[in-house]
Amino acid sequence: MLDQLRSCLGPAHVLTGKDAEPYGWDWGHESFEAPLAVVRPGSTAEVAEVVKWANATGTPLIPLGGRTGMAGGGQGEGALVVSLERMNRIRDIRPDARSIVVEAGVIIAKIHDAVEPHGLIFPLFFGARGSAMIGGALATNAGGSNVLRYGNTRDLVLGIEAVLPTGEVVELMHDLHKNNSGYDLRHLLIGSEGTLGIITGAVLRLRPKPGAYATALVGMKSLAPALDLLNRIQLATGGAVEAFEYMPDTYITDFLRLRPEARAPFAENHKANILIEIGALAPRDCVPLADGSVPIVSYLEEVLAELHDAGVIQDALIATSEAQRSEIWSMREAASEVAAMKKPLMIMDVAVPVDRMEAFIFKANIALADLDPSATTSIVAHLGDGNIHYTIFPTSTDLSHKDRLVEAIEDVVVEMKGSFSAEHGIGTHKLSTMARRKDPVALAAMRAIKGALDPRGIMNPGKLLPGE
Amino acid sequence: MLDQLRSCLGPAHVLTGKDAEPYGWDWGHESFEAPLAVVRPGSTAEVAEVVKWANATGTPLIPLGGRTGMAGGGQGEGALVVSLERMNRIRDIRPDARSIVVEAGVIIAKIHDAVEPHGLIFPLFFGARGSAMIGGALATNAGGSNVLRYGNTRDLVLGIEAVLPTGEVVELMHDLHKNNSGYDLRHLLIGSEGTLGIITGAVLRLRPKPGAYATALVGMKSLAPALDLLNRIQLATGGAVEAFEYMPDTYITDFLRLRPEARAPFAENHKANILIEIGALAPRDCVPLADGSVPIVSYLEEVLAELHDAGVIQDALIATSEAQRSEIWSMREAASEVAAMKKPLMIMDVAVPVDRMEAFIFKANIALADLDPSATTSIVAHLGDGNIHYTIFPTSTDLSHKDRLVEAIEDVVVEMKGSFSAEHGIGTHKLSTMARRKDPVALAAMRAIKGALDPRGIMNPGKLLPGE
Repeated sequence: MLDQLRSCLGPAHVLTGKDAEPYGWDWGHESFEAPLAVVRPGSTAEVAEVVKWANATGTPLIPLGGRTGMAGGGQGEGALVVSLERMNRIRDIRPDARSIVVEAGVIIAKIHDAVEPHGLIFPLFFGARGSAMIGGALATNAGGSNVLRYGNTRDLVLGIEAVLPTGEVVELMHDLHKNNSGYDLRHLLIGSEGTLGIITGAVLRLRPKPGAYATALVGMKSLAPALDLLNRIQLATGGAVEAFEYMPDTYITDFLRLRPEARAPFAENHKANILIEIGALAPRDCVPLADGSVPIVSYLEEVLAELHDAGVIQDALIATSEAQRSEIWSMREAASEVAAMKKPLMIMDVAVPVDRMEAFIFKANIALADLDPSATTSIVAHLGDGNIHYTIFPTSTDLSHKDRLVEAIEDVVVEMKGSFSAEHGIGTHKLSTMARRKDPVALAAMRAIKGALDPRGIMNPGKLLPGE
Repeated sequence: MLDQLRSCLGPAHVLTGKDAEPYGWDWGHESFEAPLAVVRPGSTAEVAEVVKWANATGTPLIPLGGRTGMAGGGQGEGALVVSLERMNRIRDIRPDARSIVVEAGVIIAKIHDAVEPHGLIFPLFFGARGSAMIGGALATNAGGSNVLRYGNTRDLVLGIEAVLPTGEVVELMHDLHKNNSGYDLRHLLIGSEGTLGIITGAVLRLRPKPGAYATALVGMKSLAPALDLLNRIQLATGGAVEAFEYMPDTYITDFLRLRPEARAPFAENHKANILIEIGALAPRDCVPLADGSVPIVSYLEEVLAELHDAGVIQDALIATSEAQRSEIWSMREAASEVAAMKKPLMIMDVAVPVDRMEAFIFKANIALADLDPSATTSIVAHLGDGNIHYTIFPTSTDLSHKDRLVEAIEDVVVEMKGSFSAEHGIGTHKLSTMARRKDPVALAAMRAIKGALDPRGIMNPGKLLPGE
């Protein structure tokens, strides 16, 4: 049955048995689903051949990148895995136009490295950037820590190329900032988690690399003044805030337990700790003065000093070296390790309007205490864009108990007009939430679109859309 | 037949005959198509009733806003016009969250006025903002002069509400910066020109109002150094360029003919004239110094002086008062009047990669001269985002002659990997271009989506998608 694929791709690129096994695991090596086989096409034309074959034979396909997904979207028992790993070419870098043309299998950190010599950045940063591939980031509309300034993955995409479920190639590889010529299929494909086609390439937006960063950790009594703090710092820096990340005191405590050699950031404990990073572009903000001080760092110091005197913040630690900057970030970047210190864990990746973050946490904690008084949590948030990772450590692993907890937190999300899925996506993990909580008219429209573009239902079946 | 609508909306809001006539004209009062009737629903529920009725009776619908569209998308003989004019409420302003909740019939300038007291802007600016409604801007993904900094309309939208062709309401009125929960129907509806549903409301993003502007007109020998100029000024100002607009010498000449009382900007003529506007946020860039100078203006002066000394630019006029700023902008904002000075005219609204603007104009001029040596042009461009309005005054109004000219310019657009429709959309005017030039796989996918969401084909039929 796979002979046709072997003759098309070469036998070395159709893996079965032991060779295919590594592709069946999720990132954390916790769940395994055996694929039918794994194919590794080397070009868009080869991807199209594979999809045509699958469409003709009715074989379910799973497009796969760096296998760092967190929602089960890249696994499926008995499906043909289409690994994009060999499509790892950077086709073009266009520094003046501030764009880069890549294939889907390029690892995100490789894009960072490729544009750095041009004084540019590709501003998509998240923990897994060293193994995640751009195709997966596109398919899931990945977020991360710099969405506040640069947007989600979809906001960084100018053009796209994809193989539709029929095996036809849709070529929209534009390097254009305006293009009103019909429905925006680019945005439809981005975030569709491989259920509408296989993204094979993209034209991405680049940004100038900040000439200097100012990084601080701020301690506060509560989250209440956080949004005002953000808006003030945005004003003072001309909108240059790159990251605005929240860590409660409990997170800091857990972090210090995880890394006993690390220093506590402040002499006192603070209920709310916020990591703030500013990226300055203009030379007058970046170039060190005669006394060695960097203007943007001085500006941040001034604002924080004012806010300290006004009693808005209780403490501030401002990085004066790259080593100090790394030390502050290392706290935030340990989030998945901190969360994984205890088991079992349930990660809730939710978003709320930026002015309702404190209210959300308050109400979620009450809801949790009602149902499981001894449960604990680990919280960390991309505060600037309202995205919170609310991890619960329940006292029972009973499935119906866990479901009750999930539903209770979802109730709070709904009350806050938030989203039950901020940046990780639906995959298979959130199918029941999607069925319960998504606007039913929207859900019906999505099913209609899926049916129209993938009538045989071969593209990553059973993901994103719950069964009716 | 309309009785059911009368009893639902009230007889005052179902217009026929003379009352309906004004709704049949386009913006320039050049073409008329008589609607069956005009309905003016006052709520989303009423819009849903109208659509259900139309779906049941198979009546074609045309959603209509401020009637400032430039592609014929808001007209249709015998169709029922659904005017959103009564849905003109601002439902909420949320200054801290930097968002506003509006109904589709709110005029864009009203949104500007409503947020101004909060020190905020809704950064969508184009000539027709005093009559265009936000629903139309959403349906067409309007662009304008500030896309370079703030993006197109779609980039300013957090949430959306729409009535689908079945009459069901899709409620996605989120105020969220991350929301990965299925296909992005918001982006599918935006720019669909009323063919997939009627947008009834939106949650829009606001931005801080710049505390000071620096505005200049720069004269250069050619467009060649323009992109380098933009990138340098972006760097010097920390990415604060709001507008970067191109006017060739011929445009300036035509403008001075249109407004004999206006002064020529420079003593000499320059082949390329670029309007540059910087919007500064940080108080240190905005607050005037003791000598009355505004720092951001001084920074721009410094950069332009350097570029002048280096021979990159030949001349620069920097506004030192609001009156001078208006004088510079008045030149650019007269674009449609300048274009309308001669008849017949053919406006080509195209986009190319930002580093191919000069090459495009060069080749387009040759292509035009080949086919119609005595034809003249009027050119004006949103240079910073690669959008050019290339207006041709042909020497013959013969339809096949005009078609040949259009096709010849399209050939150049294709060669440059550009788009034949940058910001005005397809409507009916560009249907044949769409059929000829759009990726056929993309076109087929669009038709499949249209068929899935609007099986009876009632939503703005005959627009955007060419017949097969």
